[in-house]
Amino acid sequence: MISITGATRLNVIVGDPIAQVKSPGGMTAAFAARGHDGVVVPVRVSPGDLDGFLAVADKLTNLDGIIVTVPHKFACHRHCASGTDRATFLGAVNIMRRRTDGAWHGEMVDGLGFVGAVKAQGFDPTGKHALLVGAGGAGSAIALALVDAGVRELAIHEADAARRDGLIGRLAVRGPAKVVAGSPDPTGFDLVANATPAGMKPGDPLPVEVAKLSPETFVGCVITVPAISPLVAAARERGCRTSTGTEMYQALQSAMVEFLLAGERLD
Amino acid sequence: MISITGATRLNVIVGDPIAQVKSPGGMTAAFAARGHDGVVVPVRVSPGDLDGFLAVADKLTNLDGIIVTVPHKFACHRHCASGTDRATFLGAVNIMRRRTDGAWHGEMVDGLGFVGAVKAQGFDPTGKHALLVGAGGAGSAIALALVDAGVRELAIHEADAARRDGLIGRLAVRGPAKVVAGSPDPTGFDLVANATPAGMKPGDPLPVEVAKLSPETFVGCVITVPAISPLVAAARERGCRTSTGTEMYQALQSAMVEFLLAGERLD
Repeated sequence: MISITGATRLNVIVGDPIAQVKSPGGMTAAFAARGHDGVVVPVRVSPGDLDGFLAVADKLTNLDGIIVTVPHKFACHRHCASGTDRATFLGAVNIMRRRTDGAWHGEMVDGLGFVGAVKAQGFDPTGKHALLVGAGGAGSAIALALVDAGVRELAIHEADAARRDGLIGRLAVRGPAKVVAGSPDPTGFDLVANATPAGMKPGDPLPVEVAKLSPETFVGCVITVPAISPLVAAARERGCRTSTGTEMYQALQSAMVEFLLAGERLD
Repeated sequence: MISITGATRLNVIVGDPIAQVKSPGGMTAAFAARGHDGVVVPVRVSPGDLDGFLAVADKLTNLDGIIVTVPHKFACHRHCASGTDRATFLGAVNIMRRRTDGAWHGEMVDGLGFVGAVKAQGFDPTGKHALLVGAGGAGSAIALALVDAGVRELAIHEADAARRDGLIGRLAVRGPAKVVAGSPDPTGFDLVANATPAGMKPGDPLPVEVAKLSPETFVGCVITVPAISPLVAAARERGCRTSTGTEMYQALQSAMVEFLLAGERLD
């Protein structure tokens, strides 16, 4: 049972739209389970209002954390005085916590959530060949997390060739994985990761050619609605092990709670 | 059980300090009991940051209401595009809700809470003689509510004579009660109302001469900490019926929930 008082520490999740987010309840419950009197509430902030919102957020001394969702991940990164190695590499944050000086320290845990869900289903990416579909915000974070988790090769399939090649170039410098351009053909990959919204709307094309999926291939997806995405459903039909977007967000939520609890408080 | 999602409607309580406020939990529970998916969270806003905060609040489309506590009741009134008759008379608000055009409509229910608590204890102020101690924000609101509740005479005791006489003058115009300057002597009054903090700290003088209290006199107090203020304790010892600050805040909370639920939503 959550009982909010004036002493309850405030955290917000900012996005536009915001009604679709699920994290406030789960994170508030996770705070309580950790003995922390804190709450997470949704705040809808339009892109044009974000700078003004953050300028005010800087000064709210009972505000400990800001969770960031679309479309603010890049702008919020620019507002952070510092960030983790991941956040700096990606130029994006999905969570911000206070520093001693009142400024913000940012982190991007989307990729960690994906890898955490894959590992929770018993698949270790180390030394594996991975195919990632989508090189947007979530895709870039997952690409980085897969490389950092030790995949041997990462192929990236993305319709926007400039975006794809930009990400490949930056990851090549990071190493040690071999990072190349991919296609929708999953043949020969140990892991297929979908980081596109394909499957959220009825009639969406599948992000990969599922008829070519081997039962040995692990398939992970970022989609939370529907809970079992068409890709995950098709992969399961072919005998593949899978991880869902919901499982990814559960792993991500744990990482976010840990990150926030390590922050400073201004009052 | 509160389960906050991205669709949960946001309400805040602003003040400085803020840790002492109790309303977030009670109001959130009251929303739930009314079938409304809404939450109230504390936000500490310093006086210098209030204008910037309100400028941002104007634009947050999932923010439905702002509860206002010390020291922001007058400044928030100035920010409201409209207000109830009470709020306009007092030049202060303790709650703001959305209008169709996105601007704010303000109300001041502190006085209604006091009178509600008194009535809940079985005392009807209509036609009675009342002594009010304190003509600050809470005192002014209580004075207005007592006049509007139909007291025959209201005597106001307040150390700041200019403040006292200003309030008496404004209430005299409103009518129909006779409003006069009072003293700490409760002799002859049916109702004694304390709207000062006297009794919150050990060693505080009592706001009225309790030795002169008749057992027939009803004594109401705004103090919530301690739950039984020294005035209430002394009045009870003399056989008086009483109402406490906690009872006042319970009545006030009901009025605030009703007020907010009648507001508009921007998204």
